[in-house]
Amino acid sequence: MEKVVVIGSGPAGLTACIYLSRAMLSPLCIEGFIAGGVAGGQLMTTTEIENFPGFPEGITGPELMMKIKAQAEKYGTRFLSEDVVKVNLKEKPFKIESSGRVIEAESLIIATGATAKKLNLPSEAKLWNKGISACAVCDGGLPFFRNQVLAVVGGGDTAMEEALYLTHFASEVLLIHRRDAFRASKAMQQKVTTHPKIKILWDSVVEDALGENFLEGIKVKNLKTGKLEEIKVRGLFYAIGHKPNVDFLDGQVEVDSEGYIITKPDSSQTSIEGVFACGDVKDKKFRQAITAAGSGCIAALECERFLQGS
Amino acid sequence: MEKVVVIGSGPAGLTACIYLSRAMLSPLCIEGFIAGGVAGGQLMTTTEIENFPGFPEGITGPELMMKIKAQAEKYGTRFLSEDVVKVNLKEKPFKIESSGRVIEAESLIIATGATAKKLNLPSEAKLWNKGISACAVCDGGLPFFRNQVLAVVGGGDTAMEEALYLTHFASEVLLIHRRDAFRASKAMQQKVTTHPKIKILWDSVVEDALGENFLEGIKVKNLKTGKLEEIKVRGLFYAIGHKPNVDFLDGQVEVDSEGYIITKPDSSQTSIEGVFACGDVKDKKFRQAITAAGSGCIAALECERFLQGS
Repeated sequence: MEKVVVIGSGPAGLTACIYLSRAMLSPLCIEGFIAGGVAGGQLMTTTEIENFPGFPEGITGPELMMKIKAQAEKYGTRFLSEDVVKVNLKEKPFKIESSGRVIEAESLIIATGATAKKLNLPSEAKLWNKGISACAVCDGGLPFFRNQVLAVVGGGDTAMEEALYLTHFASEVLLIHRRDAFRASKAMQQKVTTHPKIKILWDSVVEDALGENFLEGIKVKNLKTGKLEEIKVRGLFYAIGHKPNVDFLDGQVEVDSEGYIITKPDSSQTSIEGVFACGDVKDKKFRQAITAAGSGCIAALECERFLQGS
Repeated sequence: MEKVVVIGSGPAGLTACIYLSRAMLSPLCIEGFIAGGVAGGQLMTTTEIENFPGFPEGITGPELMMKIKAQAEKYGTRFLSEDVVKVNLKEKPFKIESSGRVIEAESLIIATGATAKKLNLPSEAKLWNKGISACAVCDGGLPFFRNQVLAVVGGGDTAMEEALYLTHFASEVLLIHRRDAFRASKAMQQKVTTHPKIKILWDSVVEDALGENFLEGIKVKNLKTGKLEEIKVRGLFYAIGHKPNVDFLDGQVEVDSEGYIITKPDSSQTSIEGVFACGDVKDKKFRQAITAAGSGCIAALECERFLQGS
């Protein structure tokens, strides 16, 4: 019987593990199937990180995650490199079923993150993080995007925000949307459509990314005219949404209309007592490594207080 | 005229500066008067930090703050080593008066932290961070506190939480309170009074700390009997409250009954549009370097979105 199980091993899950293990709770971290590319979270597929405080020279995503994992391990976190397939949170102890076993636990921290939706372009995998990114706020400030033409795909508030954010760096921002109207709020639309650096490509879809070692352009198709065009861009930012990784919960924890876990205000407490959530699986607004880490700490402290009382 | 001014230079303020400067907003950080010991926040008087994610070997407080400051500076944050004495947030632009000048700003991030209340013992300054600490969750897990007798001073919920937290490490925890009843919640009192490792010293005050290079004991006085006793302890943790640093605001921003700035749920937005708060000045619950850093990031992103709209 485990005191606490943490599912997920990005900045949120591992920061929770650092705090839990320092409180002598000996957490078990189900980090995901390593060869499946899940362990370590989204930072494992990120190159340079310039905005995680404490690293003025920058650090790569995998390097940062290795350090945080080593820290959790040093204080007594145990790791299981399997995926969770199913849970039973309806009775105590909670049951957590991974690909290899069933684990019983007094408390649970969910830190399974979210997955950025992709366009599945033919050259997408090759140029991922080589000009293609799912997070303008994370990556837009990197040197190779400065004073270049950058493209954003999407039509919601996030797409507007990312396009506006990129105007700080780009020579021009192309906002590419497959319809002839945005679903973003009027206020955001107003800012985007009147911004001198933003050019909107309506009724358009990206058909492929061009370039060998780094993104050099995109192939764009106008859905109304059928016209294909190659456009030189240095960055392609997807803002077509994320999908929180909650399938294994099978509806047992309360989520919002987009599937994100609902927590109490300024807290990690979910709809089930003893079950806490942190990181991108509950945050659709900020989604930064440092905000995830902060929320992992909160989950650990709240879980620790819960265990003291039980 | 500044786009954004950040007051405070702990993990919250400087993480906000990293994000703001990477968004090309060229923030001005009023970091506090350096020789006054304010700049850099509470971590500047902390020795080893083992729980900030990314540093498996540990890092000292001043070293971590130097790194974060260098990072903020690298991306374009400007620093002013003065204290803020007064603000006028009643009209725009906001006016911020430091010891040396008056600055006008479109937006403001308050990250001035909180100050732990102290007992002002004769030997307190000498043994601060050498056995005396104001944060059990921050420092209690350090190796030199393991399997030692540790003392906590206070009678509220925080004192109960800190005493319980320390039971993970200590051989015994003395909970010292000047009255004959706690003001903590009944549930917390119940846990503390029944815990086998916790011994309560009622009607008692600490008169001094003993030791030269490291805390070796405390002198305790029973207020009812007048009896003085020397007790061997290795750690002395103050849990007599914090005071948020908000005097300069002169009531212009909404605060709670203890003086902490009130922000919207899961947000840094204060009662004044364009004024954001992050870190310990708004957080009386978690107070960790990593939670402060996360909330600084949130303040920067919300401020950036505010400036886009204005």
